[in-house]
Amino acid sequence: MNGAESLLRTLVGSGVEVCFGNPGTSEMHFVAALDRVEGMRAVLGLFEGAVTGMADGYGRMAEKPAATLLHLGPGLANGLANLHNARRAATPIVNVVGDHATYHAQYDAPLASDVHGFARPVSAWVHSSASAKTVAADGARAVQAALQWPGQIATLILPADTAWLEADRPAPALPKPMPAAVSSTAIDQAAAALKSGRKTMLLIRGAALKERGLSAAGRIAAATGARIVCDTFAPRCQRGAGRVAVERIPYFAEQIVEFMKGTEQLILVGASPPVSFFAYPNKPSWCTPEDCKITYLAHAHEDGPAALEALADAVKATRQALHVGPLSRPDIPAGPLNPQTAGQVIAHLLPDGAIISDEGATAGGGVHRFAATIAPHDHLALTGGAIGQGIPVATGAAVACPDRKIVCLHGDGGAMYTLQALWTQARESLDVTTVIFANRSYAILNIELARVGAGDPGPKAFSMLDLHNPELDWVKLASGMGVEASRATSVGEFESQFGGAMNNRGPRVIEVVL
Amino acid sequence: MNGAESLLRTLVGSGVEVCFGNPGTSEMHFVAALDRVEGMRAVLGLFEGAVTGMADGYGRMAEKPAATLLHLGPGLANGLANLHNARRAATPIVNVVGDHATYHAQYDAPLASDVHGFARPVSAWVHSSASAKTVAADGARAVQAALQWPGQIATLILPADTAWLEADRPAPALPKPMPAAVSSTAIDQAAAALKSGRKTMLLIRGAALKERGLSAAGRIAAATGARIVCDTFAPRCQRGAGRVAVERIPYFAEQIVEFMKGTEQLILVGASPPVSFFAYPNKPSWCTPEDCKITYLAHAHEDGPAALEALADAVKATRQALHVGPLSRPDIPAGPLNPQTAGQVIAHLLPDGAIISDEGATAGGGVHRFAATIAPHDHLALTGGAIGQGIPVATGAAVACPDRKIVCLHGDGGAMYTLQALWTQARESLDVTTVIFANRSYAILNIELARVGAGDPGPKAFSMLDLHNPELDWVKLASGMGVEASRATSVGEFESQFGGAMNNRGPRVIEVVL
Repeated sequence: MNGAESLLRTLVGSGVEVCFGNPGTSEMHFVAALDRVEGMRAVLGLFEGAVTGMADGYGRMAEKPAATLLHLGPGLANGLANLHNARRAATPIVNVVGDHATYHAQYDAPLASDVHGFARPVSAWVHSSASAKTVAADGARAVQAALQWPGQIATLILPADTAWLEADRPAPALPKPMPAAVSSTAIDQAAAALKSGRKTMLLIRGAALKERGLSAAGRIAAATGARIVCDTFAPRCQRGAGRVAVERIPYFAEQIVEFMKGTEQLILVGASPPVSFFAYPNKPSWCTPEDCKITYLAHAHEDGPAALEALADAVKATRQALHVGPLSRPDIPAGPLNPQTAGQVIAHLLPDGAIISDEGATAGGGVHRFAATIAPHDHLALTGGAIGQGIPVATGAAVACPDRKIVCLHGDGGAMYTLQALWTQARESLDVTTVIFANRSYAILNIELARVGAGDPGPKAFSMLDLHNPELDWVKLASGMGVEASRATSVGEFESQFGGAMNNRGPRVIEVVL
Repeated sequence: MNGAESLLRTLVGSGVEVCFGNPGTSEMHFVAALDRVEGMRAVLGLFEGAVTGMADGYGRMAEKPAATLLHLGPGLANGLANLHNARRAATPIVNVVGDHATYHAQYDAPLASDVHGFARPVSAWVHSSASAKTVAADGARAVQAALQWPGQIATLILPADTAWLEADRPAPALPKPMPAAVSSTAIDQAAAALKSGRKTMLLIRGAALKERGLSAAGRIAAATGARIVCDTFAPRCQRGAGRVAVERIPYFAEQIVEFMKGTEQLILVGASPPVSFFAYPNKPSWCTPEDCKITYLAHAHEDGPAALEALADAVKATRQALHVGPLSRPDIPAGPLNPQTAGQVIAHLLPDGAIISDEGATAGGGVHRFAATIAPHDHLALTGGAIGQGIPVATGAAVACPDRKIVCLHGDGGAMYTLQALWTQARESLDVTTVIFANRSYAILNIELARVGAGDPGPKAFSMLDLHNPELDWVKLASGMGVEASRATSVGEFESQFGGAMNNRGPRVIEVVL
């Protein structure tokens, strides 16, 4: 077998089942090996930003890495923004980036570039294979690196000749990394803090935002009165009826300050203290009260759910968790179609076990008001602030969870970044309903323009934030990529279209005209 | 004035007239300054890959840098692939990349990243401003760096507080860099080589592929019999009736070897010896005959046109240049619509002074057969091999040359990468006609798959190169972004649609169904 096949067999043997890719000439041996090796699903994306975002969505839901297959430095470069988001989400991903043959590098051919340089800012692990004989072992190390708790990005650069030359064999899978245990000292410190009776906030991120960790947190809250909180952009949070409700930190600095007000102790589980998303003149970057005591119960690479369970026992919590609401869907609202009413319709119709990929930006909040009591679902946020994540993440989540309905909430500005992922949804018949909130604007920037104190902006400034001229037609854009699409201009139309989408399988786009 | 305004005034004072951008919160002070400073046109792109590609097209035609305005690391990252192409084209570009305020960096907010790290692989010059007081001077240095001959990419990172804090004043423009003069030794060496009577190829790139350099090359050819040649992917080449015709090096290694056969001397003007675009098993990477003598008449940073003129004089060339053909348009062809007949229709109808942005890939060659004798035009090639250049470069060229017709030839696979640039064409009413060759495939890869010797590929491999399922509808995609579009399935339809586009102004997309 050649190097490419040895790598592919190693990836499959290490538990990697899906490869999202957009290959080129230097990856052709890897592509050709796909038919010789059982067990790797290959999913084509028409742009690498879609490809890497799909791997992020897949990894968040499957809790194991997908591979990506990218074409030299520029192919990797196109995927970097969503790899930035994936890095912030701590999603395990193994990038396989083809490069020129080792002996070809000296000629500085047009596609030659500093692949290592492109990879470094997003990758915790980067390696360029030197020989077809080492590719398999490098692949096993890449998977292990990606699985370092809580998850990280490993980039394996594969010179074309290391793919096509003869290899010895696949490499055995390496031991799967596990989270570090939390020390009893950390448990004791957090327990002592909770027992002090001071107002405490428990800020949770990562695996502990799933049912097990939340249940323990709910017990702690019941016993101590602590607030249970997650980041504005938590990578994945399980919510809905029957689950412990989590307060979400708001977006703007002064809102965070208000939200944190009176907090005397902050206990962190896989999270960092909340800070302002951007700096603003004369506004705080640091949002935790000055005299608030900060305790790290578990760092991101430590076992958050186990730490919360141990802490619950240490504070002698009963089995009963706080903040668990019964199923209570809001009614279909009256009034005009806007982000609030659209969100309420979604909350009403969301099916059990849905996954929300949320890049709704200024328009996505309508559904969150009801998050605690609607059908149980997973919520995936825009973790790194690089817009154009929502559609690809939804696509990857659908690959990971074929039996669950995926709902993607998206602002129109961000959706234009990686709209190509819609094509993959059509090609793979993925069960994703994408709601585009078409406000014809980078609406958040109109808010930010005022907030940053940029004086009295004129027409040129406003035009840089405006998408009216010309208006995007999402029905045409989506159907141009083979996805059924419709436009809703009233609550009734939206209810009918979104309801239809919930009752049928397959990709669907609904443009909500705001 | 604040730092942003001092920078903007400096850029305008240094000759930068256009800013292609997709700003975010950290760039709002720069955006707000646009209305206070005369002389900077702001052009919005809906994705940074479109933005940087526009700056490339603008720079190639205007021969001076545009600025880009990009949003932190991920915004820059999205633009890197077309910056890679621009680097290969030696296009002057000044990137202005917003970043978090200097004091905010310590908090590692979600959008924080290694901006320097992203910038380095494509930038000859990178600097992060440390103070509002230095931003203007940094901007002047960035423009000067971009203009270092033959042109390069300068990236200025602008922390938000250096934009909003008080600055002293704009900075005066720095002296414009000029190309280095070619030494008389180099002229003498090349002249001696030409006088030897050995078979000589003159390989030209950069500014010398415009009329002045070509005219001198034509005189040399007339006097010595040397062949005049340009790279497969020369950034810009002036061609057509009345101009000295240039042979273009073919794409595949074995074709290059055949093309170079018998060449005893290679004289380089701003170029490097031709190499294979990719390496292939058992095929050469180096394509120049083994015993061929290589002479650098002018390096890329030296004055190629002046060198050719001096060389023409040194070989006592007369005023008469070789290879200048009269205007001779091909007829409208008979037969079915295919890349050849479509190219012939374009060749027939191409107006005087057109600019061709060429990412036609496997389908773009039809027009090139006639390049020497059709209407004079500029040809812009895909310089770095990173697909998704054609539409943005066409868009930027149209901004630079509002009185010229832009024709963009594009494969469908590459066009999907940066289709967002069509929206900017509509918004700015740019005179660009885009021809999408819809073969529903990464056609080049089907060729490459066989060439790399990847064995016997199966259905999974072929599916990774295939765009049939579902078929893209370019009429919907383009009109969804406000660009008039039509589909041609016969020569007659294409002639009518392309002819109509040539006789009218404004953006237009024609999908050629292959």
